[in-house]
Amino acid sequence: MGKILCKGFKTSGIASGLKKKSGEKDLGLIFSEVPANAACVFTKNIVQAAPVLLDKERIKSGKCQALIVNSGNANCCNGDQGMQAAIDMTKFAAAELDIPENLVLAASTGVIGKPMPVEKIEKAVPGLVKALSPEGISDLAEAIMTTDTFPKIVSEQGQLDDKTFTVTGVAKGSGMIRPDMATMLSFVCTDIEASSDELKDALSVATDKSFNRVTVDGDTSTNDMVLVMANGLSGAAIKDQVCKNTFQRVLDDVMIKLAKMMVKDGEGATKFVEISVNGASSEKDARIIADTIANSNLVKTALFGEDANWGRILAAAGRSGVPLDPDKPDIYFDEVLMVRNGMGCGDVAETEATKVLKKTEFVITVDLKMGNGSASVFTCDFSVDYVRINADYRS
Amino acid sequence: MGKILCKGFKTSGIASGLKKKSGEKDLGLIFSEVPANAACVFTKNIVQAAPVLLDKERIKSGKCQALIVNSGNANCCNGDQGMQAAIDMTKFAAAELDIPENLVLAASTGVIGKPMPVEKIEKAVPGLVKALSPEGISDLAEAIMTTDTFPKIVSEQGQLDDKTFTVTGVAKGSGMIRPDMATMLSFVCTDIEASSDELKDALSVATDKSFNRVTVDGDTSTNDMVLVMANGLSGAAIKDQVCKNTFQRVLDDVMIKLAKMMVKDGEGATKFVEISVNGASSEKDARIIADTIANSNLVKTALFGEDANWGRILAAAGRSGVPLDPDKPDIYFDEVLMVRNGMGCGDVAETEATKVLKKTEFVITVDLKMGNGSASVFTCDFSVDYVRINADYRS
Repeated sequence: MGKILCKGFKTSGIASGLKKKSGEKDLGLIFSEVPANAACVFTKNIVQAAPVLLDKERIKSGKCQALIVNSGNANCCNGDQGMQAAIDMTKFAAAELDIPENLVLAASTGVIGKPMPVEKIEKAVPGLVKALSPEGISDLAEAIMTTDTFPKIVSEQGQLDDKTFTVTGVAKGSGMIRPDMATMLSFVCTDIEASSDELKDALSVATDKSFNRVTVDGDTSTNDMVLVMANGLSGAAIKDQVCKNTFQRVLDDVMIKLAKMMVKDGEGATKFVEISVNGASSEKDARIIADTIANSNLVKTALFGEDANWGRILAAAGRSGVPLDPDKPDIYFDEVLMVRNGMGCGDVAETEATKVLKKTEFVITVDLKMGNGSASVFTCDFSVDYVRINADYRS
Repeated sequence: MGKILCKGFKTSGIASGLKKKSGEKDLGLIFSEVPANAACVFTKNIVQAAPVLLDKERIKSGKCQALIVNSGNANCCNGDQGMQAAIDMTKFAAAELDIPENLVLAASTGVIGKPMPVEKIEKAVPGLVKALSPEGISDLAEAIMTTDTFPKIVSEQGQLDDKTFTVTGVAKGSGMIRPDMATMLSFVCTDIEASSDELKDALSVATDKSFNRVTVDGDTSTNDMVLVMANGLSGAAIKDQVCKNTFQRVLDDVMIKLAKMMVKDGEGATKFVEISVNGASSEKDARIIADTIANSNLVKTALFGEDANWGRILAAAGRSGVPLDPDKPDIYFDEVLMVRNGMGCGDVAETEATKVLKKTEFVITVDLKMGNGSASVFTCDFSVDYVRINADYRS
């Protein structure tokens, strides 16, 4: 389904020379034939990149017709010059596309605090617009990659009455990712007809189920944003709650798949692990405990070592700040009961659990047996390569 | 000063077979000739090891004459059997020392959830008591090591009137260390005369200045405790506020030195870094920001890579939850101004900052220019070896 783009959308991605390695794609464009209704969520980091600050203003109109995005430079902490660069990016794209500048959003990802060489973007924009194509989604997905090892594209379809609509999203990871702080860059197009308020509501629900449930390293970027654009060209329109639910289901599906791709491509990751906490006093408590486990360096290095070191899981739960009875928890690795009532189940269980840990995907379930609250988050292991990637990122 | 022990204290450390490598010391003992006044702080993790639970009860008396401690097994998540094992450890020591059992405390460190082989300890205790010596402090410090690469001992002296008192402490690191959650194991002996209430107050102040200011990996152990014992045998007695201040200064000094040793010996650490935050709206805000920076995997891997990636420092500050003005912060690496008003100072500054990063010890100062709150924490870099050590810990 990777190549299906929605009706009336074109995308492109080219190399403009922003990335160190020449020839690597680093500039992308999304264009809708007609102005689309749109909604965004942004990073909760107080330090925010210039394009984030710009988009926050522009998205208030609920409209967007194009997005220009670069990798290789975050355009963050660049002061007034950075803001001017973000505005200029949209200006170049608007002029070349012949649409109003305020219908163009900007996004950037890469190193923080490096001056933005807008002249490179200016030079590249005509080629970028020329490259626009209904089949350009892979180029776009490549152009937004930083330490990502593969492009992330998901496309799904839904049905409203007899009309088919499509939702297609791209995303980039793969470090500085932590739950509850919006997400990394992700752009979702759809040809459904929906108001910007409907999009805002649906995006908020889907973000909480997807990008806010994943963690790679507990850090939050200054540039995170998710954009959803709906141009209505499929003819499928949201008319009632049933339609809303259908759209929500498809949007959730696309965003959850993108979020899981991010974790799988987490920097240096070798394993994709769901941390599922049940039996908490509330969903909120379950979520806090799941996040603490999913972000624990000691848990994540043990996952890399394929070591069923469940004591670290209980220790992480115990320091989460949520009250729990340490004599109650059961812990499962997939179906293997490893801990019962806070105590290990012995060598046979450990042998079985170790088999689970050798898989590349599995679920760790913690049952606190205190109530009905439950929550899941997705994490990856913490490998030697994570450190290598991040020690050398700028060099 | 490493070998000075206080008057009337003897210590020992021997191999009992709890550690995998035979011959490695794993059982230690502290003994005061007379019952000492004592105070403890314990881990804030809700999941607590059996010896922590036992000591919490016993320390209520404010008295302690001996402590028995093992490495190689945390005796945590072992249920009733674990509690019985902790009690048994103190029973064996009490019998051999011929003192009341309730004057003996226990401590354990090592893998969580492994049954405690008390029979090994029972067999070893007579030899442990026999080995007690006023010069036994190095053996004790060795016996409590897990992934530590060197023993941690600090001894300092103070003067009250014409009387000299000594404060000697040992500690073990070097993973599962995070500020604000008590600390790892540390035992401090002194021959000053002080009440258990005076000790409790002094310990609380010193802990906040020392072990609560260090971080290695953001995880908190189930077994952390700091014990201070004062047997009064120096003849130096706390009589007034001036005496209290003198004792506090020496105790602070010992504990801060031990805490810094822990960070220097942080798992895989190659650098010791002070994160100093000034100009915050309050001390509390400064502390939260300093902790967030000090615990950021991205900051810590950049330190390992000797990369002046100041954007990660600002990004960590920005996600700390504390309000700040992103256009104000200055960042220094030692004396080198790298960021001014939230923007980088350019290539010359970066070249100078990179020189600082090549050192093994330096200070990163963040000035928020918002108020008078300031705080410092100590952290280490995050190396490939941290992951190796923790992936393989149990194997």
